[in-house]
Amino acid sequence: MIFDVTILGCGAATPTSRFNPSAQVVNVHDKLFLVDCGEGTQVQLRRQKIKIQRINHIFISHLHGDHYLGLIGLLSTMHLLGRTAGIHLYGPPELKELVEVNLRLSDTWLVYPLEFHALVPGSKQLIHEDRTLEVHAFPLRHRIATWGYLFREKPRPLNMLTSEVAHYRLHPEEIISLKAGHPVERPDGSVITPEMACAPPQPLRAYAYCSDTAYWEPLAEFIRGADLLYHESTFLEKESARAHETYHSTAGQAARMAARAGVGQLMLGHFSSRYDSTDRFIEEAIPHFSNSILAEEGKTFSVGPVL
Amino acid sequence: MIFDVTILGCGAATPTSRFNPSAQVVNVHDKLFLVDCGEGTQVQLRRQKIKIQRINHIFISHLHGDHYLGLIGLLSTMHLLGRTAGIHLYGPPELKELVEVNLRLSDTWLVYPLEFHALVPGSKQLIHEDRTLEVHAFPLRHRIATWGYLFREKPRPLNMLTSEVAHYRLHPEEIISLKAGHPVERPDGSVITPEMACAPPQPLRAYAYCSDTAYWEPLAEFIRGADLLYHESTFLEKESARAHETYHSTAGQAARMAARAGVGQLMLGHFSSRYDSTDRFIEEAIPHFSNSILAEEGKTFSVGPVL
Repeated sequence: MIFDVTILGCGAATPTSRFNPSAQVVNVHDKLFLVDCGEGTQVQLRRQKIKIQRINHIFISHLHGDHYLGLIGLLSTMHLLGRTAGIHLYGPPELKELVEVNLRLSDTWLVYPLEFHALVPGSKQLIHEDRTLEVHAFPLRHRIATWGYLFREKPRPLNMLTSEVAHYRLHPEEIISLKAGHPVERPDGSVITPEMACAPPQPLRAYAYCSDTAYWEPLAEFIRGADLLYHESTFLEKESARAHETYHSTAGQAARMAARAGVGQLMLGHFSSRYDSTDRFIEEAIPHFSNSILAEEGKTFSVGPVL
Repeated sequence: MIFDVTILGCGAATPTSRFNPSAQVVNVHDKLFLVDCGEGTQVQLRRQKIKIQRINHIFISHLHGDHYLGLIGLLSTMHLLGRTAGIHLYGPPELKELVEVNLRLSDTWLVYPLEFHALVPGSKQLIHEDRTLEVHAFPLRHRIATWGYLFREKPRPLNMLTSEVAHYRLHPEEIISLKAGHPVERPDGSVITPEMACAPPQPLRAYAYCSDTAYWEPLAEFIRGADLLYHESTFLEKESARAHETYHSTAGQAARMAARAGVGQLMLGHFSSRYDSTDRFIEEAIPHFSNSILAEEGKTFSVGPVL
C-alpha cells in the first residue's frame, strides 16, 4: 500500500534556480493529494510525470504567494485539458474569493465542479475521509492564518490466518466479524478474539505537513507520533532573530518539534534562498533529532515502513 | 543604441515542457520593459540573467492566465529583494483589482510604489514616453478586452558634420538649432538647413506586440511600418475554424497582417501546445510574407537595423 510524498518545491518566498516554491504530492494508496501550489507547480508536476488529472484534492496552507500562486494556472490547465471530475479545494476562507476573482476577470467558467472547503481557525479538524484515509487540518503559528495537514491511514480489515480458519472451523459471518476486529462468541460460550485468528494489524501510518510556522509547542499534540513530519526550516540558528520576527523556524527548532511530537522521521524544507548549501540545516537538526533528512525536489519519500 | 526583444515565453494557454506562457523583455536604449507575464516569468528572467530590478514598466495585454499569472509573484519578489523604485503597471482596468486582492489577502504591503495605468478601450493611446521612446497601446480583437503595444523611437538630435561646422563657421546656438532639426537664418538672409550641415537622420525603429488576437483588418493601421511585429499564431490553417471560434490567428493570417501593415519582419509566437513542431508555422507564413521568423525562448531579436 503506497504512502509517500513527492517534493515539487521546497524553497521559501521566491523561486530560484535551485528551488521551487512550496508544493508536494502525497500519494496514499494510489490517490494523489496536492499540498500547496506555489508558482510553477504545474510545470513541476509535468517534469515528475505526475498526471494532473489524477489529483482530486488540493490543500493550501496559507495565502502567501509562494504557497498558492500556481493554483489558478493549475485549475485553468485542468479545465483546458477537458477535466470533468470535481476538485476539492481546502484552504483559508479567503481562498474562495481569490479563485473567484481570477476566474471572473479572465471570463473563465470551469467545465468541472470546484468544491471549496473553508478551514476553521483555532482547532484541529477532520476535513476529508474515505475508506482508508483521514485528513486533518490544524493551525500553525504564522504571520497570517495558516494550517498544517495530517494524513492518517484508517484501520484496515485484518488478515485471517488460514491455519486458524481451519482450526476453529470459522463460518463466513465469523470471518467478517474477526477481520473487522470484533471477537466472536460461540453457542458453547467460548470466545475467539481477532488476536487468536488473525495476523497482527499493520501499523497505521501518518504524514504531517507543517509549513509555514514559528516554533510553537502546542503543535506537537496535533502531529504526535506521525511517521514522517515535513517541517519548515526557513532559517539557520544564526538567523534565529529573523525567524522569530517572521514567524518562521530554524532547523534546530524543527528538530526540537520532531522530538517533542515523537515522530518517526523529520524532513526539513522551505529553505531560504540566502543559503548556498543546505548542509548546515541537517547539521543543526541532528543534535536535536537524529532521524532528520533534507527535502529534495523531484524525490519521493516513503511515509513510515513500506507495507 | 540597443533595441531588441528577448522572448521568455511563446507558448499558448498552458506551460509545457517546450514552451512557457507569454512574456518578453523589450530593451530600448538599455531600458527594460516587460510585456506580459505568464506563470514562471520570474524564473525565466533569472535563467536569461536579466536583472529584474532593472524593469520599471510592465505591460499586460489581457487577463487570460497565460498572460498575467506570473505578475503577482514577480511583484512580490521585487518587494522581497528590497526594491524601492516604483513600478508602472499598464493593463486592463480590472488588473488593479486583481493585484490588490492578491496583496490584501496575503497581507503584503509593497515597499515600493506601484503606479497603475488603466488602458482605454477602442482607440490607440500614448501610454508612456521618455526622451527617446514612445509606447502606445491599441485594441486587439480577442474574447476579452485585449491590447497590443507599440514601442517607437523618438527623433534623436542630428549628428553634425564637422566639415560643415568649419565650412559655415557655425556658432554654438546655430549648432543646437540644426541638431534639433531646425534651419538657421543668418543676418545676411542666407539659410542653412539641417540637411546641409548634418548627417542624415538615423531611421526611427518600432516594435509591435500583438497577442492575443483574431485576424482583424483595422489592426494594420495601428502597427503600420513597424520594423518588427510579434503576432500571435496560435494555430495552423487546418485549425482555422478553431482559431476563428477562439479569437486567435493562424500563421497565414499573421503573415497576411504583416503584409497588410507593411512591417519589416514578422515574428510568429503563442504556439498551441497541440503541435509537436513549429516548422509548419513558418511554412504557412512565408507564402504571405517572406520575412517571417519563429519566436524562440531565450533568444534575443534585434528590432530593425542595429544602429
